[in-house]
Amino acid sequence: MKGKPLVSIISAGLSKFGRHTDLCAREIFAYAAKEAFMRCPRLDPKRDIKALFIGHMGESYEHQGHTGASIADWIGLLNISATRTEAACASSGVALRSGIFAVLSGLADIVMVGGVEKMTHRNTDKVTEYLAMASDYPFEQWNGITFPGLYALMAKAHMHKYGTTEKQMALVAVKNHFNGNMNPKAHMHKEITIEKVLNSIPISTPLKLYDCSLISDGASCAIITKPEIAKKYTDKPVHIIGSGQASDTIGLFERNSFTSLMSAKLASKKAYEMSGVNPNDIDVAEVHDCFTIAELIAYEDLNFCKAGEGGKFVESGNSKLDGKFPTNTSGGLKSKGHPVGATGIAQAYEIYLQLTEQAEKRQVKDAEIGLTHNVGGSGSTAAVHVYRRD
Amino acid sequence: MKGKPLVSIISAGLSKFGRHTDLCAREIFAYAAKEAFMRCPRLDPKRDIKALFIGHMGESYEHQGHTGASIADWIGLLNISATRTEAACASSGVALRSGIFAVLSGLADIVMVGGVEKMTHRNTDKVTEYLAMASDYPFEQWNGITFPGLYALMAKAHMHKYGTTEKQMALVAVKNHFNGNMNPKAHMHKEITIEKVLNSIPISTPLKLYDCSLISDGASCAIITKPEIAKKYTDKPVHIIGSGQASDTIGLFERNSFTSLMSAKLASKKAYEMSGVNPNDIDVAEVHDCFTIAELIAYEDLNFCKAGEGGKFVESGNSKLDGKFPTNTSGGLKSKGHPVGATGIAQAYEIYLQLTEQAEKRQVKDAEIGLTHNVGGSGSTAAVHVYRRD
Repeated sequence: MKGKPLVSIISAGLSKFGRHTDLCAREIFAYAAKEAFMRCPRLDPKRDIKALFIGHMGESYEHQGHTGASIADWIGLLNISATRTEAACASSGVALRSGIFAVLSGLADIVMVGGVEKMTHRNTDKVTEYLAMASDYPFEQWNGITFPGLYALMAKAHMHKYGTTEKQMALVAVKNHFNGNMNPKAHMHKEITIEKVLNSIPISTPLKLYDCSLISDGASCAIITKPEIAKKYTDKPVHIIGSGQASDTIGLFERNSFTSLMSAKLASKKAYEMSGVNPNDIDVAEVHDCFTIAELIAYEDLNFCKAGEGGKFVESGNSKLDGKFPTNTSGGLKSKGHPVGATGIAQAYEIYLQLTEQAEKRQVKDAEIGLTHNVGGSGSTAAVHVYRRD
Repeated sequence: MKGKPLVSIISAGLSKFGRHTDLCAREIFAYAAKEAFMRCPRLDPKRDIKALFIGHMGESYEHQGHTGASIADWIGLLNISATRTEAACASSGVALRSGIFAVLSGLADIVMVGGVEKMTHRNTDKVTEYLAMASDYPFEQWNGITFPGLYALMAKAHMHKYGTTEKQMALVAVKNHFNGNMNPKAHMHKEITIEKVLNSIPISTPLKLYDCSLISDGASCAIITKPEIAKKYTDKPVHIIGSGQASDTIGLFERNSFTSLMSAKLASKKAYEMSGVNPNDIDVAEVHDCFTIAELIAYEDLNFCKAGEGGKFVESGNSKLDGKFPTNTSGGLKSKGHPVGATGIAQAYEIYLQLTEQAEKRQVKDAEIGLTHNVGGSGSTAAVHVYRRD
């Protein structure tokens, strides 16, 4: 099998994504943690887990920062070394990477990584404002542009340069809602049609309501360890065999190109090189479809297809459950939901399920190699990880 | 010499602390980065630095999160792996620790760690509100308590239990202002008297204005690498020989004791054990004097003296520049200033200067072993590091 394990996932957990009216972030996280602890009865969390990294984007939502310590306390890991990481919507992608560093350092053999966000108690205006903090304040926010606008600029540029169509973007939404409908933890269980997407209200032209991912509450976690001791805790570890992270300008306007994300290209290049895997080896992928255009660009940046061919790629059915590159089998950010801090490790959770054959109706047959692609802001951060089954 | 190096500091930088009216956080950080780059001419930052960890507490101050990517761009490290860490006022203490993990992982030989905060453009009410996000929202913030109140509770408890006096607390302020007056980068250059402290306006009884640290703008950074290659970059590396981090309940009210910080005790225990150093070996320390009472508690938690004897310890002169445990030679948070995200690595910067004999008028003679003690919130996070000269 390809790829020397860097670390191994011995368990993972995910809260239901959606609207958690009566819970705060740390309580939602407790559901994810509980699942991870229950899955791994040989682990004594309080005794064995030596460090915690929590991706959490916005302290504004609940007027609550210091999320590492707060969550450690709430999940019964009082006094552990606990750190919040933030890189906008890639906050838990980078938490995973920070956890990998910790395990590889030799100072913490078993590490919990996770992410959380509680968003739905705020109105859309506030959520839009808080999300905008991930873009450039003096040059972007100050001038009134928000994330739908930034991704609309990318969509327009992609359409102009490559002839990508609104219908092709709509196909991403249709596919991801189809998958999400089979995921009991998804925020939305609702199959949609191309017409439904094309006729939905405009948000920032050419992006319409159904081109946009969801505002959700949710939490995700994974427990990682050194590969040589993973079997002590589970018979079915999933190995992380490649990790890449890169950044780009905080402002979209500073880039040479609006039609690809340099951070994602660099991060995936590193993850591919480290793992010895090439794109053709990927059996299942979770990519950052914050807007439908973002998934088309992801296909290209990850070399699932050539630059400019993302639209044709989704048309070909290649990214469907039964295609060559099943992508966002969980439903993605589009249908599973996008509690921003939780998203990166929620992707890892889906790959964990897929590579341990626990994905039920959406199981990809014989999936051996998986990939996650988690993006922050308009591509100012990207974290890409490659996984393989034991 | 004691202590096997975990990693080595090959350079460090600090912006002037104080009021930077016309600069935003990333611009202030550029001053710190520039100093670190200039100090280490053998380093090619763009080529050599493989990852960046930035401690930044509050995205609210500038409506700007995603600080890792933003700063990477601004200091000429475009496309690097860049992550923001947050643990309230220990945000850069945990950035340092995350950077140590990265170096030890073998995946990033040279790592930049730093911290930044821009606070002075906001009025005191807003700053107080944003800082409060580091405490518990439902049980603390909601009931109106802010950080001066939380530390006042600790002070009252310490006075009640041990007979600690307001005058003893005042001595911390007097000492740290004396030291800060010799630090050209300190926010305040103003020697004060015990009377000045005791007669200053009450903030939260028993804490008065001069018992409180400052609201400042500032940035700090350090460049760390594997000990075996440090000499390639500098003739005078400083080695980090111990690292400990621990958490405690987010709410002060949940603790068994208000007179010591369990997180600091656990973090220092780990750092001492790892380094093989005991408290008597410490030649110079930077501790988290966000309020004067916090420094007294730090002496005790770090075992510079016994529990309850912090007041007598400062009276004895032990923590003065010419004492047995020179503490906060930089002026500490009290006089150097407290741009919260920057503080942890600003402490490391002072120890770096001391152990390379660059601390000028405040140089501790023959300093060989140093320690930093960085606290987040009311002690919900603590990061302690032990250093030794080459």
